[in-house]
Amino acid sequence: MSTPHKTAATAVPLHPLLAGRWSPRGLDPRHELTDEQVTALLEAARWAPSASNTQPWRFAVTHRGTPEHAAVLDALAGGNRIWAHAASTLVVVAAETHTSEGKERPWAVYDTGQAVAHLSVQAEVEGLAVHQMGGFDSGRIAALLPDGVIPLVVLAIGRRDETAELPEVLAGREAAARDRLPLEALQVPLGVPTAV
Amino acid sequence: MSTPHKTAATAVPLHPLLAGRWSPRGLDPRHELTDEQVTALLEAARWAPSASNTQPWRFAVTHRGTPEHAAVLDALAGGNRIWAHAASTLVVVAAETHTSEGKERPWAVYDTGQAVAHLSVQAEVEGLAVHQMGGFDSGRIAALLPDGVIPLVVLAIGRRDETAELPEVLAGREAAARDRLPLEALQVPLGVPTAV
Repeated sequence: MSTPHKTAATAVPLHPLLAGRWSPRGLDPRHELTDEQVTALLEAARWAPSASNTQPWRFAVTHRGTPEHAAVLDALAGGNRIWAHAASTLVVVAAETHTSEGKERPWAVYDTGQAVAHLSVQAEVEGLAVHQMGGFDSGRIAALLPDGVIPLVVLAIGRRDETAELPEVLAGREAAARDRLPLEALQVPLGVPTAV
Repeated sequence: MSTPHKTAATAVPLHPLLAGRWSPRGLDPRHELTDEQVTALLEAARWAPSASNTQPWRFAVTHRGTPEHAAVLDALAGGNRIWAHAASTLVVVAAETHTSEGKERPWAVYDTGQAVAHLSVQAEVEGLAVHQMGGFDSGRIAALLPDGVIPLVVLAIGRRDETAELPEVLAGREAAARDRLPLEALQVPLGVPTAV
């Protein structure tokens, strides 16, 4: 579904899978992911790079209509519950931040961000929308997970539905152009002494 | 440059930009990035998603032949220096983990991982290789950066050169197939009580 008002405004051309990606809240409450799509999303995450190939990312995949989906939905912040109930699939993303011997993995959270980014790119390929949420009851989600993994975000995945009814403030965000800091603001100088 | 022995082995088709990406060490010591390529990589990072659109990622871009590139190279772990000197561009990736008022940004590291993943996908589009390194003297790199940003990784970016000479152990890794945990190992169950 083309959403030209959401396409990134860039100084040079960006690949459409990156330029066209955004995080909608209006999702089709009847849409379901195929098994192949779920596998493709997980494969994308699986083949992401990580520090010493540690692959610290973990995923709990739940589908609308199951007790697991309902439990995850129920632990979301209210502002997310009001639209994320329509997500075909809610995925709890967690990280193994320590080895089973208790050694810290300093890049576990960073690497899990990368894996989800790869998943999101594949979602674009599949015609699926991904909206990441940090607003949830971390203790409640953690209690659902096995020991040793820390929940980081919940992904709402589904098919965008521009006719979905949203509260006014969210409908406004859905219609607004995306915005970012200027390119210059992302760049920092290195204070290297100059030769004299 | 096609590297079929490095293509991800997946249960279902993955987009080639994801399936074909890997992290080479053999880089062409004469290659240089164009300004447009640098801009495209930063634009890719810029348009990544982040918690409440905080955009905590920061980049210090250095080019081979400059004091900044030399300073970053010098702070790398020895096992990285022996090949990363050939990188056209070394990029220090850092995160603003706190606001200027000292408030923590809990997703800053996670989001910066996402931004680098987006950058890496655009690098594939540009025919460039990215190899992320966590092995560097964090204190020395931090001392080069402005206050308030934490260095996370250094990116070696360039053009792959399969004729580049590498120490035997690294040449072996360069030739080896990529491997990952099985798909099942990434998935964790949710312990939701079943109705009785």
